[in-house]
Amino acid sequence: MKTFPEVQEPSSELLRRAFDVRRAATALGQATDEQRRSALLLMADALSDRAKEIVEANLIDLERSANEGLSRALMARLKLNEDKLIGAINGVRKVALLPDPLGLVQLNRELDKGLSLERITVPLGVLGVIFEARPDAVIQIASLAIRSGNGALLKGGSEASCTNKSIMSALQDGLSSSEVQPEALYLLTTRQESLSMLRLDGLVDIIIPRGSNELVQFIQDNTRIPVLGHADGICHLYVDSEVDLLQALRIAIDSKTQYPAACNAIETLLIHEEIAAAFLAKAIPAFHELGVTLRGDKKSQSYGVIERAEEKDWSTEYLDLTLSVRVVSSIKEALDHISRYGSRHTEAIATKNKKKAEQFLHAVDSSGVFHNCSTRFADGFRYGFGAEVGISTQTLPPRGPVGLEGLVTYRYRLRGDGHIAAEFASGEKEFSHKDLPL
Amino acid sequence: MKTFPEVQEPSSELLRRAFDVRRAATALGQATDEQRRSALLLMADALSDRAKEIVEANLIDLERSANEGLSRALMARLKLNEDKLIGAINGVRKVALLPDPLGLVQLNRELDKGLSLERITVPLGVLGVIFEARPDAVIQIASLAIRSGNGALLKGGSEASCTNKSIMSALQDGLSSSEVQPEALYLLTTRQESLSMLRLDGLVDIIIPRGSNELVQFIQDNTRIPVLGHADGICHLYVDSEVDLLQALRIAIDSKTQYPAACNAIETLLIHEEIAAAFLAKAIPAFHELGVTLRGDKKSQSYGVIERAEEKDWSTEYLDLTLSVRVVSSIKEALDHISRYGSRHTEAIATKNKKKAEQFLHAVDSSGVFHNCSTRFADGFRYGFGAEVGISTQTLPPRGPVGLEGLVTYRYRLRGDGHIAAEFASGEKEFSHKDLPL
Repeated sequence: MKTFPEVQEPSSELLRRAFDVRRAATALGQATDEQRRSALLLMADALSDRAKEIVEANLIDLERSANEGLSRALMARLKLNEDKLIGAINGVRKVALLPDPLGLVQLNRELDKGLSLERITVPLGVLGVIFEARPDAVIQIASLAIRSGNGALLKGGSEASCTNKSIMSALQDGLSSSEVQPEALYLLTTRQESLSMLRLDGLVDIIIPRGSNELVQFIQDNTRIPVLGHADGICHLYVDSEVDLLQALRIAIDSKTQYPAACNAIETLLIHEEIAAAFLAKAIPAFHELGVTLRGDKKSQSYGVIERAEEKDWSTEYLDLTLSVRVVSSIKEALDHISRYGSRHTEAIATKNKKKAEQFLHAVDSSGVFHNCSTRFADGFRYGFGAEVGISTQTLPPRGPVGLEGLVTYRYRLRGDGHIAAEFASGEKEFSHKDLPL
Repeated sequence: MKTFPEVQEPSSELLRRAFDVRRAATALGQATDEQRRSALLLMADALSDRAKEIVEANLIDLERSANEGLSRALMARLKLNEDKLIGAINGVRKVALLPDPLGLVQLNRELDKGLSLERITVPLGVLGVIFEARPDAVIQIASLAIRSGNGALLKGGSEASCTNKSIMSALQDGLSSSEVQPEALYLLTTRQESLSMLRLDGLVDIIIPRGSNELVQFIQDNTRIPVLGHADGICHLYVDSEVDLLQALRIAIDSKTQYPAACNAIETLLIHEEIAAAFLAKAIPAFHELGVTLRGDKKSQSYGVIERAEEKDWSTEYLDLTLSVRVVSSIKEALDHISRYGSRHTEAIATKNKKKAEQFLHAVDSSGVFHNCSTRFADGFRYGFGAEVGISTQTLPPRGPVGLEGLVTYRYRLRGDGHIAAEFASGEKEFSHKDLPL
């Protein structure tokens, strides 16, 4: 278990910076769609202009991290070559083109003659984002923040510190030629600062941690600021008895192997006992060929799964080419298993029976419930959100993949002509509560 | 400062109860609109049938509390006579008639031929509600919970323990003749239990505290479960220079005095200096007559306000007939004051100048921003929500008055025909992302 240093009160320097971000965010929240869009394009231009410098800064980070013995997987995530950077810059331009999430009228209601209520979308304010090695995350998050009218305090991994600084400097350059104040973005540089951010209630509106469960729980335990929680992704595929066997296998393979380190990959396969023998006869060699280790309950072992699944397997997010397998006697047993061990991320059913599919889609309380398709589709880009800041496994909105729309809140505007509550309390007047077109 | 006992891990009894509530809530979440509606009507009937018993239980609570020296204000809140009870029962019937907040399709998108995504509203799951003396709150919250398909663990004030038990018994009686399981509601009886509830991550989806700021902050500091935060209501009315003076005064009086203990009553009046002399000449005697004490800055003292406002007055929620007054030189200064001292609850501007009104409505980052009307309208009933569980001063949704709609979340349903992610990752297929009618 990682240990975290003690959370200290923010330094006066951090407070000053956070006030600056808040002030800039307040102005940004009133900027027009066009002004925010054009700011993003200028951010993209500045990144392009300084691409060489950014890639060079990344080389410094890579060299230092190699000397420090960073794992190969993390080195791969840290690496930002020109191709990857161009991809990230194109991402900024795409976010610029996404429809404006602000100013949408969600409710338009006459409360009384001359007294009209509307609810419109507005920015959250200031995002506090803590993320890991991938330096392109700075680009992605900054563009989502500015597009949605939010300021952001960002803290990246220390491995990427040179790259992140270089990127942030380019982004702020871009902003300084736009109508959005560059102070809307601020890069935290020390771990102590990122922890102190947890105490910035009133200045930071949401904490978005992109890291381990331990990090997320530590943050939840140490802040009053709402946290966009991402817990384990313990996703399930239930293969029903009435099934297109080859289609189900194809979905199982994609859900497990298309990118096993992703949170939307499955960790457990539940198979109806009537189909288990036939399904596993095909699945065991197929998974073996792809390097996937299966861990089964007793029944699936009787059909040829070699390794035994322990109790803890059912609640383990492998993030690797390992898959636990359990044979169940009914859809009910599958639902109970999911309810007990699932993390409410994404679960799928493979069945030809529409009624059972609908039963599953109604009963499973996960942010994504899928029928006859891979769990790997649970993703902001694939859903068509254009981009995502992460996937929330909390129950409250924003839930599931969080795109621009998840970075806004709403405000009630009430316009009257001298209306007072006493007249309604006395019965002199009555509310009309008439909904008007949006 | 109140002290709170230590939060202990839930007892096995509490865990068992919470599991029961969760199980019942899962079934409730799949109940039809008609089933939930009819459950509410049966709850109302059961309350009617047992009205005499409930009122008698309340007399026991009142007598005990009087002996224990409960304050007059709290005694008034604790009292549940037949009239009040009938009012609360009518409230249940009204909530039954509110439109179903569940199953609303918020997004309907074709991702590819045969692969369709929808986002529909679903219940949050289980609410954990901690509230104070008023026993009718049990009735209100239980009806909102069941109508929105949520289970609930409820903890009321110990003063009302007999009344609450009697009410809960009637509510569960009502449910037992409905298709909703009575286990969906559970009344916690000890303070230790209500604190242990904070540790029920995964079984409770949201904590709704209806109490003091201290209680809310204590809860935020001691749980990973999202909290529907209600902080101070430090609301402002800004009286602009271009104003209908009598209308502004009427709004000021209503905002302060219509119910001073409410969170949406104003605590501070900001007055433009050009109008300050004229406005205060009328306002000072009017407020005096109503028993309102004014505390002013130097300038407003120069116009006749007698008491001096200290720095801490600007951030004090009086909840009483006291009002702080400040003269400002511009709308900008008013906005800065609100940004510094406000609690983002509700602020209003009184002005005849539409441009300034819109400036105010755009710049103030509160859940309610009002023009030429009383801040007292910031209320779920007045907004036409039919009922409210409380007012959230957090930035994230649900924000402002929280009705049925604030007690639901959403789920993504994806229906395919063997679709796998690999085909899209390889470029073999492309997403269509075509929005379909809702």
